[in-house]
Amino acid sequence: MITQTSAQLFENYKGQMHTIADIRYASAVLQWDQETYLPPKGAGFRGQQIATLSELAHRLFTDEKLGNLLQDLSARTDLKHAEKRNVELSLEDYTKQKKLSSSFVRKLSEATQKSFHSWIGARKENKFARFAEDLSRVVELKKQEADLLGYKKHPYDALLNDHDKGSDTILLDALFSDIRVPLKELLDTIVSRPQVNDNFLRQHFPKQQQWEFGMQVLKDLGYDLEAGRQDIAEHPFTTNFNIKDVRVTTRIDETDLSNMVWSCIHEVGHALYEQGLPESEYGLPLGEAASYSIHESQSRLWENHIGRSIEFCEYYWTLLKEYFPLQLKDISVTDFYKGINKVSPSLIRTDADELTYHFHVMIRYEIEKKLIEGSIQTKDIPTYWNEHYQSYLGITVPDDKQGCLQDVHWSHGSFGYFPTYSQGSFYAAQFYAKALDEIPELPQKTRKGEHQELLGWLRQRVHQHGRMYTSEELCTKITGAGLRIDYFLQDMLAKYRNIYQF
Amino acid sequence: MITQTSAQLFENYKGQMHTIADIRYASAVLQWDQETYLPPKGAGFRGQQIATLSELAHRLFTDEKLGNLLQDLSARTDLKHAEKRNVELSLEDYTKQKKLSSSFVRKLSEATQKSFHSWIGARKENKFARFAEDLSRVVELKKQEADLLGYKKHPYDALLNDHDKGSDTILLDALFSDIRVPLKELLDTIVSRPQVNDNFLRQHFPKQQQWEFGMQVLKDLGYDLEAGRQDIAEHPFTTNFNIKDVRVTTRIDETDLSNMVWSCIHEVGHALYEQGLPESEYGLPLGEAASYSIHESQSRLWENHIGRSIEFCEYYWTLLKEYFPLQLKDISVTDFYKGINKVSPSLIRTDADELTYHFHVMIRYEIEKKLIEGSIQTKDIPTYWNEHYQSYLGITVPDDKQGCLQDVHWSHGSFGYFPTYSQGSFYAAQFYAKALDEIPELPQKTRKGEHQELLGWLRQRVHQHGRMYTSEELCTKITGAGLRIDYFLQDMLAKYRNIYQF
Repeated sequence: MITQTSAQLFENYKGQMHTIADIRYASAVLQWDQETYLPPKGAGFRGQQIATLSELAHRLFTDEKLGNLLQDLSARTDLKHAEKRNVELSLEDYTKQKKLSSSFVRKLSEATQKSFHSWIGARKENKFARFAEDLSRVVELKKQEADLLGYKKHPYDALLNDHDKGSDTILLDALFSDIRVPLKELLDTIVSRPQVNDNFLRQHFPKQQQWEFGMQVLKDLGYDLEAGRQDIAEHPFTTNFNIKDVRVTTRIDETDLSNMVWSCIHEVGHALYEQGLPESEYGLPLGEAASYSIHESQSRLWENHIGRSIEFCEYYWTLLKEYFPLQLKDISVTDFYKGINKVSPSLIRTDADELTYHFHVMIRYEIEKKLIEGSIQTKDIPTYWNEHYQSYLGITVPDDKQGCLQDVHWSHGSFGYFPTYSQGSFYAAQFYAKALDEIPELPQKTRKGEHQELLGWLRQRVHQHGRMYTSEELCTKITGAGLRIDYFLQDMLAKYRNIYQF
Repeated sequence: MITQTSAQLFENYKGQMHTIADIRYASAVLQWDQETYLPPKGAGFRGQQIATLSELAHRLFTDEKLGNLLQDLSARTDLKHAEKRNVELSLEDYTKQKKLSSSFVRKLSEATQKSFHSWIGARKENKFARFAEDLSRVVELKKQEADLLGYKKHPYDALLNDHDKGSDTILLDALFSDIRVPLKELLDTIVSRPQVNDNFLRQHFPKQQQWEFGMQVLKDLGYDLEAGRQDIAEHPFTTNFNIKDVRVTTRIDETDLSNMVWSCIHEVGHALYEQGLPESEYGLPLGEAASYSIHESQSRLWENHIGRSIEFCEYYWTLLKEYFPLQLKDISVTDFYKGINKVSPSLIRTDADELTYHFHVMIRYEIEKKLIEGSIQTKDIPTYWNEHYQSYLGITVPDDKQGCLQDVHWSHGSFGYFPTYSQGSFYAAQFYAKALDEIPELPQKTRKGEHQELLGWLRQRVHQHGRMYTSEELCTKITGAGLRIDYFLQDMLAKYRNIYQF
């Protein structure tokens, strides 16, 4: 028997990973199409087609032969550092995926297809009950998944770990408990001050003008539209089929300017990350994003630290006035800046300000934890939700559509995703503080509409590494320390002191 | 060993065919996206992804275990008629596909992806030479395919048979030789008569109005837009991912009304066929169209026998005048009817009138035959093309874009496809004659914009059968005889006698 060289073995591994990636990305195309252009009656067969691809990709990835190849490669000492890391991560993924059977993966995929469509139906009818049963089935399968994947303390840890390696309920309980009080205090202070005016954002802003303005912003931030595109979807998202085809979606509300613009910036933050991953690592771990929370750090950094800054407003002021001359007639750029940063407890997470946003996440985190541990059932969600919106944010939820039916995530089986939204915001603040430290002229650049320097910094510090480091390792590598909430809190304090004058 | 019942075996077969269909249709989604929305830089990876899915579907379909299952099922005597036919056809397909290795299928898929993109580039530069080399590679592979599939007389027969079972060069040489002379005589007569005016079709027709009018026609003809959609593509086509998701594409030329409208009707003819296939036969032969020529019979029937009839013009006259009041100000419905039926030798096949259309096909048929037998090379195509446009149609081809670069087919590796366009037109005439015979009030229905009766007739006579019959069997079943060109010639004579007054 001729022993293969490490290079040959690695090529073999790479070839298999390419095939699996091709199938997974094909499935992503089908999902993108499902949320943008699919004719309504096509949903049934489409669900089946996606389930087949998921099952197939899983079957190929958990093939014993691939496992043996990975084991064999792991023992090789002559691999380059990046190759070694790819193999290590693939073996980790393999070991994890191996715990789930292909039939389980198919079952889960079918169940989420079904619950996605009943979520759409439930939203239309504004009735959570119509969704509860299909969601229960998904929760049941996610519990099984947690058991299969294994965990030390809490079954939810298995799902959290799946979105951000190393994350668990102990860490997150501590994080949210640390931030809850200072955030609440800040909110109370703000609420006691005279409110800023943002009524001007709620006039008629024609679709076409919003679309064009959003596209301009996408381009200016450095999104390559030859390697991506934007479409309209019910729930904005970013998806990628390779680094040369990274797509964003948005929605336009003609009665609210704030809806689309910052959603565009948010999604493009995700897209810039995907467009910055190394092309040569297609299909391999180092060609993938580090984690969901690092992904979110990129969208939040662009959305909040750039998009909601006074410098950003100043740069776009002329263009905004051109697109919306009547709507912004009596408004100054300072008014505009204050308006888009207005803090006010509200019902919809994606419309929330930077501060109250995290109460939305906390509520979802608590519900997920309780659903997975079985201490509440899906039918209890509306009550739990509405009670906590009252106690955390002091607002009354009028109906399910503006309450527990607002997010698509659970219908997709994404449990453990929401916490990464808060973690991402906190990472963003920490990264941006470091970037400012190293490039103090960033705000002036933003005022001139120049973003190459910041993008270059992110490409070099974050994007190019793919999954080389965990979130915490990456954070330490970039900033010298793991995640700390101080940066975020300081930013909040500075911004709102200025806006609310306290 | 427990012997499985025929029902169990059939379920097993059906399950495997569903998986394969899911993969093939996923690949079709990726191809649809490629021709409608793909960002330009995404083409490379997309080609690879499509090739992986093609190879995978082929590998699963040619798995020995599926072959054994099909053999086993073939021997069963207790299958229902439709089940038996499905098994028979699948075994036929299996035996054929088995002759091609998965690596050959992948090679072909990669080569056609590449040549498709160089065709696009060559069109941009208006230079066939830029495309010739990649096309040669495709021709080389198609020759290999012909050899692998096998044939009795001519290698091209293998490819013809692939598009229309039973079709070969002997049949087609005879068909084209039968039709060439009477068509040429008719053309000469027409050319000797005063020409009709169609200048009014070449004014400015705004995109949006054309789009809306086209959409209205699609709906009126019975196309279910809840189970389909229309998008813009460079080269109009119809594709289907299941009978609940059948999509058409179109292109709009603002300087020419005739470009989009009849292309819409043509494509919707294809789409109505796909929407009319039996849903329960998803993934099985009886859930597929009978052949390319029968498919074309459906598009041609709607495009020519309905869309180019005086009754159709009469029904849409009011709406057309509403959409294009200035453009059609001085035009009568008779002028309009004559204009859209003007016969005049022209450069572009898809813009050709019903009569000269078949000279375009003959030229392509001859070129394909010669390429596959090796008597000409791809570099010879422009010369051969231009000479024959001169001799058959008396026109000079000014450049490659209006000449041999006009069609996408060869870049896709579709050799043997073009002849089915003529066969389809002739089948359409024969079918429509029969339909008229059985439902003499069809023209009056068309004048009222009512198409359910004709659609119902086609559903019952053609669509519902899937691949149960070959083209010729189906034609005989419907009309009592195999394909005859008389119906087509009689229609042509009657129409143009009236228009050109001879």
